[in-house]
Amino acid sequence: MKISTEIINKTVASIQELDTCSMEMARQRLDSLTKPRGSLGLLEDIAVKLAGICRGVPVSEPKTVIVLAGDHGIAGEGVSAYPQEVTCQMMRNFLSGGAAINVLARLTGAHVAVVDMGVLEEIEPHENLYIYRVRKGTGNIANGPAMTREEAAAALEAGIEVAGKEIKKGCSVIAVGEMGIGNTSASSAILSVLTGYKVERVIGVGTGVNQEVLQKKITLVNQAVNVNLPNPNDPIDVLSKVGGLEIGGMVGVILGAAAAGVPVIVDGFVSGAAAMLAIEMAPLCSEYLFFSHLSAEAGHRVMLDWLKKEPFLHLNMRLGEGTGAVLAFPIIDAAVKIFQEMATFREAGISSGTEGGLDPETEAQVFNEFWKRRF
Amino acid sequence: MKISTEIINKTVASIQELDTCSMEMARQRLDSLTKPRGSLGLLEDIAVKLAGICRGVPVSEPKTVIVLAGDHGIAGEGVSAYPQEVTCQMMRNFLSGGAAINVLARLTGAHVAVVDMGVLEEIEPHENLYIYRVRKGTGNIANGPAMTREEAAAALEAGIEVAGKEIKKGCSVIAVGEMGIGNTSASSAILSVLTGYKVERVIGVGTGVNQEVLQKKITLVNQAVNVNLPNPNDPIDVLSKVGGLEIGGMVGVILGAAAAGVPVIVDGFVSGAAAMLAIEMAPLCSEYLFFSHLSAEAGHRVMLDWLKKEPFLHLNMRLGEGTGAVLAFPIIDAAVKIFQEMATFREAGISSGTEGGLDPETEAQVFNEFWKRRF
Repeated sequence: MKISTEIINKTVASIQELDTCSMEMARQRLDSLTKPRGSLGLLEDIAVKLAGICRGVPVSEPKTVIVLAGDHGIAGEGVSAYPQEVTCQMMRNFLSGGAAINVLARLTGAHVAVVDMGVLEEIEPHENLYIYRVRKGTGNIANGPAMTREEAAAALEAGIEVAGKEIKKGCSVIAVGEMGIGNTSASSAILSVLTGYKVERVIGVGTGVNQEVLQKKITLVNQAVNVNLPNPNDPIDVLSKVGGLEIGGMVGVILGAAAAGVPVIVDGFVSGAAAMLAIEMAPLCSEYLFFSHLSAEAGHRVMLDWLKKEPFLHLNMRLGEGTGAVLAFPIIDAAVKIFQEMATFREAGISSGTEGGLDPETEAQVFNEFWKRRF
Repeated sequence: MKISTEIINKTVASIQELDTCSMEMARQRLDSLTKPRGSLGLLEDIAVKLAGICRGVPVSEPKTVIVLAGDHGIAGEGVSAYPQEVTCQMMRNFLSGGAAINVLARLTGAHVAVVDMGVLEEIEPHENLYIYRVRKGTGNIANGPAMTREEAAAALEAGIEVAGKEIKKGCSVIAVGEMGIGNTSASSAILSVLTGYKVERVIGVGTGVNQEVLQKKITLVNQAVNVNLPNPNDPIDVLSKVGGLEIGGMVGVILGAAAAGVPVIVDGFVSGAAAMLAIEMAPLCSEYLFFSHLSAEAGHRVMLDWLKKEPFLHLNMRLGEGTGAVLAFPIIDAAVKIFQEMATFREAGISSGTEGGLDPETEAQVFNEFWKRRF
């Protein structure tokens, strides 16, 4: 595998600000529809943001959820309710279609792409599997770095490449999810380093450990931060010292998608840690992200507050895999369909009340111009 | 129209407690699936509750959203950003498919049934329209009762009948929504009376009025409560004094659906006021309700806290029509599909970790028995 920070730098540099002209036209269109102005709340904001991302008419089809998997040395310390081999077992479950993410992706019309970023066992090739295997699991962060800086760069590059391939296949919206026994420990370490918050404040029970294991987890994550002393101003350093291979992959997917003008739906706590690193590397990519759900993992609220993001769904989920992210697909679709299909006040012959609205000629002009701009 | 509280009493009396045996079996099934126990949060709770409602395997198809409309005398006081004729104009929009509820119902695979509970103009008959027209709009609650007790009973009975007809057509899940210029004023009055909270605490901007109109709205709703003095222990009295025809219809739909063992998804503030009245009339019906979204209408958080209900969606919406409720359909579907389609630890050959799980024989036995119980 060729390692090159040039690809990463080029990707970061090519992320554009959202197109304010498309956003303005989208808002005008929404204001002419048969509803009180702004009454569809975030659905309207999503449609406007998507217009800015798409640089024209908002679209949300086709969809892909990319599930990135990696193993974690710290899992050997027993920080999870599950043994480490479950990472590989679950990857096979993703590929045979029996996992929660498969069920929910089928329901929401999304393709599932699985990425081996470095799990312990070799997984058999499969049409839906990308194999990168940057290394065979990370080092135990409680004792030393997760990976080298070169490996961290390789993980980022792999994610960028996967996003590029899925976008080339035609996908318009990407959800990111993950699998990796031990990865909430790594994510808490990342969150603590980037925010400066104490580990105790940003940690949770992960797969569902008891209080005794949680205490051990806190001690080990504290140790990981103190042993490795990651530089909070250098996201690649943070990733390499206390991160994970699948976390690096997700950072790459986010950067690659944003660079290609494709929105990314972030899942829960672990994907959120990746989003934080991506935003540190490229603040503009923040505008390409949608935060799907509020996880039951205790540190997630802290993370979202720090990012100043409000999730759509409050379902008390804590599974990962991208399960919360794909449940946001129908909401994104709803925003797009509202934009495309609702009648205007004029079309429906309805009094637009004290709020006014566009006069018919302006409305037609705005909308025709907007559709023409689709490319 | 025949008015009979006998039908109402019979409906209330026939609402059963959820079937705990089906719920227990559903929980066992969920615990055997390839995910940490409980990690799908509310999706698991929804599946369990649906099993209890369905008294067997949870189902969520086919779906109907019932949109009930009525006019409000208080609208003449200018408490809304829109003129009163918008109620009828929007009903025609619902029937021609151009409104937000139509767009979102198409997206989520739901049938839209519209009910004229008493709007000012006569709406032309349509295959998707039920015509009850209990009276031509309510009286101005700021000066006197919204309707007589007999009319309130007729509104309830109409709702019960509509629910019965839609269920007879085959629907398994019902969402309720509404249209009625002025109906957030009536809902605030209901909420204030039932909770004993001051009107100021439970009121909001509705369609989006300015601060001056909001002050007038507060004054008028206070006046409505003081002039009519509804008996908080008599929900039909509350409905008749300060309610609305479409609100009464929604109460009836909820009672009728619960009596028939069909779950109801409640939309936002106005539907929530109907749910409160329904729960006052028949506390058991509370178990048949799902609260879909947290509305931007200021009193909604107060209402949900009082009901001890947590909504799934936080989208800052305040449109009504059932738009928030239908957006919960994909979540209900997700719960059902997870239950039906996910692989068990045994099927996927995955270590079930420290949490254990059922032994294979018990698992098979539980599940076979469960499927047999479907009727």
